[in-house]
Formats: sequence, structure tokens, C-alpha cells
Amino acid sequence: MMNQVAHMKRTLYLSIATFIAGTLFAQDLNLPAPQKSGGMPLMDALAKRSTARAFDSRDLSPQQLSSLLWATFGINRPDGKRTAPSANNKQATDLYVLLKQGAYVYDAKSNKLAQVLTEDIRQLGGTQAFATNAPVILIFVADFSRMGNGSDEAKKNTANINVGYLSQNAYLFCASEGLVTGARGSVDRKALGPKLKLRPDQIIVLAQSVGYPKP
Amino acid sequence: MMNQVAHMKRTLYLSIATFIAGTLFAQDLNLPAPQKSGGMPLMDALAKRSTARAFDSRDLSPQQLSSLLWATFGINRPDGKRTAPSANNKQATDLYVLLKQGAYVYDAKSNKLAQVLTEDIRQLGGTQAFATNAPVILIFVADFSRMGNGSDEAKKNTANINVGYLSQNAYLFCASEGLVTGARGSVDRKALGPKLKLRPDQIIVLAQSVGYPKP
Repeated sequence: MMNQVAHMKRTLYLSIATFIAGTLFAQDLNLPAPQKSGGMPLMDALAKRSTARAFDSRDLSPQQLSSLLWATFGINRPDGKRTAPSANNKQATDLYVLLKQGAYVYDAKSNKLAQVLTEDIRQLGGTQAFATNAPVILIFVADFSRMGNGSDEAKKNTANINVGYLSQNAYLFCASEGLVTGARGSVDRKALGPKLKLRPDQIIVLAQSVGYPKP
Repeated sequence: MMNQVAHMKRTLYLSIATFIAGTLFAQDLNLPAPQKSGGMPLMDALAKRSTARAFDSRDLSPQQLSSLLWATFGINRPDGKRTAPSANNKQATDLYVLLKQGAYVYDAKSNKLAQVLTEDIRQLGGTQAFATNAPVILIFVADFSRMGNGSDEAKKNTANINVGYLSQNAYLFCASEGLVTGARGSVDRKALGPKLKLRPDQIIVLAQSVGYPKP
């Protein structure tokens, strides 16, 4: 009888612990503070910039991931402005991040990755296998609803330019950090969009793999 | 009589000298070798990156101009690849440069500025005065004829992304070098295109002013 009660108690405690862990930890990934100084001298990073087509499966450290995201589109000024310009400072690009443990969207203000789903959907981050075994796949998503008035064509032009800015930041961070990267437009948008729970006015512009070089 | 002959000779020599100078020097601007190493640490340059809306009229040095152009879209590998990626490595963006002494197009291979015209057309580099008194205005021009097959819409998407990459390089170079810069889409394309002798399939994507900060 005593044993049964103990077992029930243990089961109850475990359930509660699992629930709390699920609530506290499974949804978002808090990131360590990004590195906002140092790295390779700029001209050396430009000299090393290249596009990679092969990635080791080794994970980035949380510090590397945080610094990569900050470099790409982090907040670099007290007024909330960013490391890359955007037309009329609308900041209408969202940075989705595909990891083994799930898909996230970068919250630059809170310095965290807000969870979108707990599923490894990296294989949807490109149409060629080499691109999707990287530990990190960035998905650049333009949000037309935050781009004010103007034609869809004008918004598309702006969205594409905006994403070029961000993607180059990621290229240079990788060159500086000894990581490798490659961006591509070829993504199965019809499959990836619903997985990322995108609205019709959120447009996938580019995908970009980041990882260590294949030995 | 002796004086007349001397005068005619002098006039002849001057004409020849002017002709030679015109042929040798007025067409192209040879650039000093760009600085391909050093500069500010990358993360510091990213922390400093911002958009400027006021420029001093002071000129950049030839060394700064050369390094700016190399950083933006120079050749960084023996196989001719560049500091910024381009879709399928087509390198279909040309970098036009408006200076006080004329308009040029960047020849990355020969490290020179090939002259397009000897006229100060910087006021065509933007629709707002603050933008056009900078000593250097970069004009990013997509060449659809070098982008292979595909729809004009697909080419436009690619062209815009390509230019975002280049423009961010210029932003980071300026942050590193103590210069300031600002890019814009608002350009009078109908006036600027013919001045730059662009074909109908060459599209002006962005203009970007570069200079010293206004004191």
C-alpha cells in the first residue's frame, strides 16, 4: 500500500515536472548575449567570403548561433535599428531558423528563438541534399503586411534587396568565424510556408545553410 | 620671324600634349591596389553600421575609393569570384560610380574606373539634395543580358537580391573606414539611364552615396 502511494506520488511529480519543463523550456530558446565586438578584420573577412556547398553535421555552439543571428539582423543601436538597413526602417524581414530540434523565429529584441514547431524540417530548407544537412538553416521571410502601402511588385523589389543585405552579413560572419555558408533561392515554398505557419503575405525569399566545413 | 616660329612650335607642342593627355588620362582612372586585409573587426563594423543622410563634400582618397570598390564587389579569388555572391556566379551587376570629374564603371579585373562621360551628374544620383552632394555615388546596375534564361520577374528578383549583397559590403566598409553612407531606391531612372548609356536591359536598382560625415 505504502509502495503504491509512493509510486503514484512519483508519477504525479514526474508529470508535473514534465509539464513545467514543457512550458518553460520547450517553447523558446533563450540565447546567450551575442558577441558585438571582435572577429576578423573586415577586409580579411571580405577576402575570405565564399559560397559553400558541403557542410559537416556538427552543431554550432549557442554562442555562435546567437552571434550569427545578431550579425545577420540584430539590434545595433539603442533606438532599435539593426545591423542591416531596411527600406524606411520598416524591418519587414523575419529570420526563421531551422535546427535539428525544431523551427524558430529570431526575436532580436528579447535575444531568443521563439519556437514555431518541434520538428526537424531542415530537409525543406532546400531542394538539394547538400544544403539541408547543415546544422543551421536560415529562412529569410518578407512580411508584406509591415511594408506599408505600394504595389506588390514594389514590395517584392524591396523585400529582395532587404534580404540581400541580411544574407551578406551572415556570409561575412561565417568567413570571420571559420564557418561556411551558402544561400539559395530554390526552396519548396509550398511545403515550407505552411510548416512555418506563414500567412499568405509572408514571402520566403532565400534560404541559407550555415555550418562547419565538411572535413 | 624667330618669335613667330617659336610661338607656332609652342602651340603645336601644346596641342600634341593636350591630345596625348586626353587619350591617356581623360578616359579611365587607374586605381591603386585595394587594401585586402585589415580594417575594423567585423563585429565592431556591424555594431557601427548605420545609414547617413548628410555628407561632407571632401573627396575620398584614391586608396579609399579603390578599397571601397573592391570591398563592394571586387575579385577575392584567383578564379575571378567576388566579395559578394551572385546567382549562379553570373556576376550580372555593374557598379557605376559618379564623381565630380565624371561617371565611370568599375572594372574589377583591371582595377580601374572606365570612363562613361566627363560630366558631374551626381545630382541625378538621387531625388533629394542631401544624397547627391556626397563625393562618391555608387549606382548598382543589373544587366539582364548576363542573367541567362528565365522570366523578367525572376531576373528582377535575383537582381535585387544581388544588389543587397553589394550594398551591405559598402555599408560595412564605410563603418570600418570612418566614412558614412546611405542607399536609396529613389533615383530618376529615365534621366540617369541615358546619361550612363545603359541599354534597355540594364536596370538601375539602387544608388548609394559615400563620403565623410558632415562636421
